Amino acid sequence: MIKIALLGCGRIGKMHAATIARAAGAELAVVYDPVGVAAEEVARQFGCAAAATAEEAIAASDAVLIATSTPTHADLIEAAAKAGKAIFCEKPIDLSLARVAACRKAIAGFDKPVQIGFNRRFDPGHRAARDAARAGEIGELQQVVITSRDPGLASRDYLKASGGIFKDMTIHDFDLARFMLGEEPVEVFATGSTLIDPTLAELNDVDSIMVIMRTATGKLCHINNSRAAVYGYDQRVELFGSKGMVISGNRKAHELERFTATTTNVGEPYLNFFIERYEEAFALGLKSFLKCVAENATPDATFEDGERSLALAEAANLSLAEGRFVKMAEVTA
Amino acid sequence: MIKIALLGCGRIGKMHAATIARAAGAELAVVYDPVGVAAEEVARQFGCAAAATAEEAIAASDAVLIATSTPTHADLIEAAAKAGKAIFCEKPIDLSLARVAACRKAIAGFDKPVQIGFNRRFDPGHRAARDAARAGEIGELQQVVITSRDPGLASRDYLKASGGIFKDMTIHDFDLARFMLGEEPVEVFATGSTLIDPTLAELNDVDSIMVIMRTATGKLCHINNSRAAVYGYDQRVELFGSKGMVISGNRKAHELERFTATTTNVGEPYLNFFIERYEEAFALGLKSFLKCVAENATPDATFEDGERSLALAEAANLSLAEGRFVKMAEVTA
Amino acid sequence: MIKIALLGCGRIGKMHAATIARAAGAELAVVYDPVGVAAEEVARQFGCAAAATAEEAIAASDAVLIATSTPTHADLIEAAAKAGKAIFCEKPIDLSLARVAACRKAIAGFDKPVQIGFNRRFDPGHRAARDAARAGEIGELQQVVITSRDPGLASRDYLKASGGIFKDMTIHDFDLARFMLGEEPVEVFATGSTLIDPTLAELNDVDSIMVIMRTATGKLCHINNSRAAVYGYDQRVELFGSKGMVISGNRKAHELERFTATTTNVGEPYLNFFIERYEEAFALGLKSFLKCVAENATPDATFEDGERSLALAEAANLSLAEGRFVKMAEVTA
Amino acid sequence: MIKIALLGCGRIGKMHAATIARAAGAELAVVYDPVGVAAEEVARQFGCAAAATAEEAIAASDAVLIATSTPTHADLIEAAAKAGKAIFCEKPIDLSLARVAACRKAIAGFDKPVQIGFNRRFDPGHRAARDAARAGEIGELQQVVITSRDPGLASRDYLKASGGIFKDMTIHDFDLARFMLGEEPVEVFATGSTLIDPTLAELNDVDSIMVIMRTATGKLCHINNSRAAVYGYDQRVELFGSKGMVISGNRKAHELERFTATTTNVGEPYLNFFIERYEEAFALGLKSFLKCVAENATPDATFEDGERSLALAEAANLSLAEGRFVKMAEVTA
Repeated sequence: MIKIALLGCGRIGKMHAATIARAAGAELAVVYDPVGVAAEEVARQFGCAAAATAEEAIAASDAVLIATSTPTHADLIEAAAKAGKAIFCEKPIDLSLARVAACRKAIAGFDKPVQIGFNRRFDPGHRAARDAARAGEIGELQQVVITSRDPGLASRDYLKASGGIFKDMTIHDFDLARFMLGEEPVEVFATGSTLIDPTLAELNDVDSIMVIMRTATGKLCHINNSRAAVYGYDQRVELFGSKGMVISGNRKAHELERFTATTTNVGEPYLNFFIERYEEAFALGLKSFLKCVAENATPDATFEDGERSLALAEAANLSLAEGRFVKMAEVTA
Repeated sequence: MIKIALLGCGRIGKMHAATIARAAGAELAVVYDPVGVAAEEVARQFGCAAAATAEEAIAASDAVLIATSTPTHADLIEAAAKAGKAIFCEKPIDLSLARVAACRKAIAGFDKPVQIGFNRRFDPGHRAARDAARAGEIGELQQVVITSRDPGLASRDYLKASGGIFKDMTIHDFDLARFMLGEEPVEVFATGSTLIDPTLAELNDVDSIMVIMRTATGKLCHINNSRAAVYGYDQRVELFGSKGMVISGNRKAHELERFTATTTNVGEPYLNFFIERYEEAFALGLKSFLKCVAENATPDATFEDGERSLALAEAANLSLAEGRFVKMAEVTA
Repeated sequence: MIKIALLGCGRIGKMHAATIARAAGAELAVVYDPVGVAAEEVARQFGCAAAATAEEAIAASDAVLIATSTPTHADLIEAAAKAGKAIFCEKPIDLSLARVAACRKAIAGFDKPVQIGFNRRFDPGHRAARDAARAGEIGELQQVVITSRDPGLASRDYLKASGGIFKDMTIHDFDLARFMLGEEPVEVFATGSTLIDPTLAELNDVDSIMVIMRTATGKLCHINNSRAAVYGYDQRVELFGSKGMVISGNRKAHELERFTATTTNVGEPYLNFFIERYEEAFALGLKSFLKCVAENATPDATFEDGERSLALAEAANLSLAEGRFVKMAEVTA
Repeated sequence: MIKIALLGCGRIGKMHAATIARAAGAELAVVYDPVGVAAEEVARQFGCAAAATAEEAIAASDAVLIATSTPTHADLIEAAAKAGKAIFCEKPIDLSLARVAACRKAIAGFDKPVQIGFNRRFDPGHRAARDAARAGEIGELQQVVITSRDPGLASRDYLKASGGIFKDMTIHDFDLARFMLGEEPVEVFATGSTLIDPTLAELNDVDSIMVIMRTATGKLCHINNSRAAVYGYDQRVELFGSKGMVISGNRKAHELERFTATTTNVGEPYLNFFIERYEEAFALGLKSFLKCVAENATPDATFEDGERSLALAEAANLSLAEGRFVKMAEVTA
């Protein structure tokens, strides 16, 4: 039984608590949150201890799940590594590439698993798409198209602290693109608009974006994001290759179709929001992490994956500002 | 916490054990199986007691889940009722209508919930279809078409003890038909063939059947069954009415579609078999039962539902033998 | 260029005129209708002659297309055969099996093609289903399910003269069933209700029916019909076999899907009514007929097919009246 | 009856001849091709005259359909305009923006319809998508995604003369983007690779491209093209707005779905190639042109549309070369 310390008891932290509670081979041993009552509530609900400090929680565990606010991630990773505990950290590692690089250096030589919370890699449909491509079912992969739209705009406070759409939202798609492509994008173009909420310009942010990336072998990848798709959480991946195509589509709660005098084939709304859509993915991601902890193996979504996705987001910001195809060497050098 | 005694630790019993283990508000307190080691194995896996006798298990519980072999169901229902425990019993109650009627009389006046394991009523898609019809979305219901095909022929031993396809397999569809129609079929026609395994004729059984039923108001219902659909467990319900139609379709593990030089839109196989396809339905059925126990309410699938479905199966047997539209009054009088 | 005489210039006659006008290798030479102005209108529209009598029209042609009212079909078939002209006759040949048998005897020895207007055999989707079954793609065929629903109730006058639902509407599905099964049904069960228009009982007719048929080898076939599907003309065929299943589905004018805050995957309505849905089938049926005329070959839908489908309708009427599985030998002996 | 002169009797010319032959209100009066026998063959097939020169053909018509090789388009437009004949010209008008501008000036004041062959505007699905957007069904349009992939690489000779992928293939999508957006793109980014045939680099061409465009109000549009989609001609348009989404999908010859032990929901291949996929669109485009000729109205796809799409292609070439977001003012000034 792997004892897990959960750091952070907000929306995503509570979701992780529930996922841990259902997982075989794991035990939610202790929780911590800077807001003590938040930790106590989760502790009560799941019947575990509430620690007064993060250090105390880390000490009482085999593995640490970091779901606190972004600015604390890197510090907690370093603290957990120093304590010798396996680490599962929500994305992004940090909003600053420099801080991430410093964190990487700080934990150099740490030999326990460090997994970043790129849940979509573990979604059964997305993973089956990747596996089909790897198995050669679509021949040589040539183009990737990722559609990723949130059902509605987050709160102003959330957006203010988010680091902007590329580091907050597209970062999932940057990671998914790398997961699908199987090689690194070397050039990034990005543009965006405030089509949903014009006042986002005050935050120097946009709500609707399109990206194109190119790898060294010429593979092309497109991402489009919207902060508000009224018909639900739209999560699709399309892989196109020399021998065919695979598309991982949206999920519905069930397969009812309705037919009336004016409409045909009306389906259920898409699962909405990520906690529902990626419920299986979160569970499978945790399961994979637990297996890595047990076998001291390298996770599917590593610290390096977290760093590279952030670098792509940084390149996208530069491209948006300068209107050009930015070379990754410019941001990672 | 409702303490449940699980009677029967075979394939379906183990599935129920896992469902109980995941359910909120329930505790798998004790298990029993005529084969002691089977009970012990489940007890070990789920960390509960193993009783030496059914009576002992019943005594140690708030509610009893009967998943033993069919011939024992009625006796155990009577024992549990005598002990004053809420009852969840797998279908069918018995293969004999007379025994079911006797059991009904034996427990007359028992005031705790008795739920029969008609899981499909709790399937989100099927239930949404029923709810749409009840809500008037398709106007006046006129026709029901149920397609229900197992992925592969069960073992000879299973089939020998099954009571024949109508009492073993179609009974689920008879119940679903009543659930959808919202009124009682008054006439039943059935025919069948041995198209999958001609030697089933030795068991006086068939493997491929078609049924038509008619209610007092003239509503029509068709059921088709096959014991072996190579493409998976095929479970569809279509409701047709004066203002439209709803279709509850099959479920897949995920929504990957594959496109190659020779094929287009290739989907995942259907979830296969009932433990996978109706996993949610089993959980929701148990949840509904627990709520009835807590509130001492009438379950969605009652003893009477079990008896009526068996009567429809009996009528189908008579129709198959005599090639005519059998009136329900003939078998239930 | 095969010169065609079109007899009958009503709704279906006009449709045939347009189909002939578009066909390669055929020429609409002359039209006839008992209502002279109807013939003249079609003649003007398509730039052909209008004959004063059917005999005159027949004489001026290589092949005759009979689209007059049902009671005239058999006489016109006999007249055309006597004149030595190839024949394409709309269904049904007659409402009386005896008259059809007499007609068969009257034209015995006639050596030109006689094709009955069972258009659905030529529908690309339905034919692909049949071809897949014949090619062994689904192994041994076991069950056929035909859903066939008209978009709205025909006029009272039409219904009065129609011969009842089985001879007017289901006859298409009886023919399709034989086409799909590849062997003859030997037993027929049918039931029906007046769920759409209760006053149809005055015509001794029903508007909602279900049928089950069985072949000598035990293959099973279900048909359901409704006179009024508000969501459109619903035409589906499902073939189920030992190695798989094929489903021929409905056609839409185009593939637009709509997604809104409350609905998902909303499709176009189905093509509506048979003139739109089976436009290709009518053209392909005519093309096939012209080929048979040119090569003096046997058509895909023969006089015998017309007679057998009528016999199935007769058996259905008997079954509806007597509530039993009727043996085909009873009606055809 | 509008008499049409068809100039050019190659693959696309023959297709137009057949479309004209089927159209109501039009007559294929005369054909011309620089290769005399090609014209004679088409003349024989459709029973019309074959002219020795383009001028002769133009003189004998009410309207001219230009389907010759691209370098002759502008000259023939000018000749037809001078002769006062309505004009339908295949895309592109010319490969040189300067030549197109000169042609525009040469025909300034010409008051008969000039329609460019952007057939996709007339595709029922694509048009229904546009109409839904214009009607406000999806609120304010925000993003457009166009997937457009040919089934296989054209011949080397064709590609050499094509002017490159943007002017030959993407030009259709540039036009479709403008049609859907309802406003002009002001910035264009394009990149591409030779993933299908590396030797295309010798022609200074690519076979796989991705484009992003932005309008003045911030609407975003993505296009992806491939010269070789093995699963067929992939033609999809997705419109995303503040109140919903519409997707115009691919067409199949019929709606058969196949299910086997290893695959589910296998559909027919997509209609392949443009002559099949856009058969209706070509017919509707011609119908629309004939209506404009009859009413002397402005066509749906004007000379200006041809010029603007070419300008977008020019901008894409510049962007591909320089790796930056090119402003339309740079290429159109």
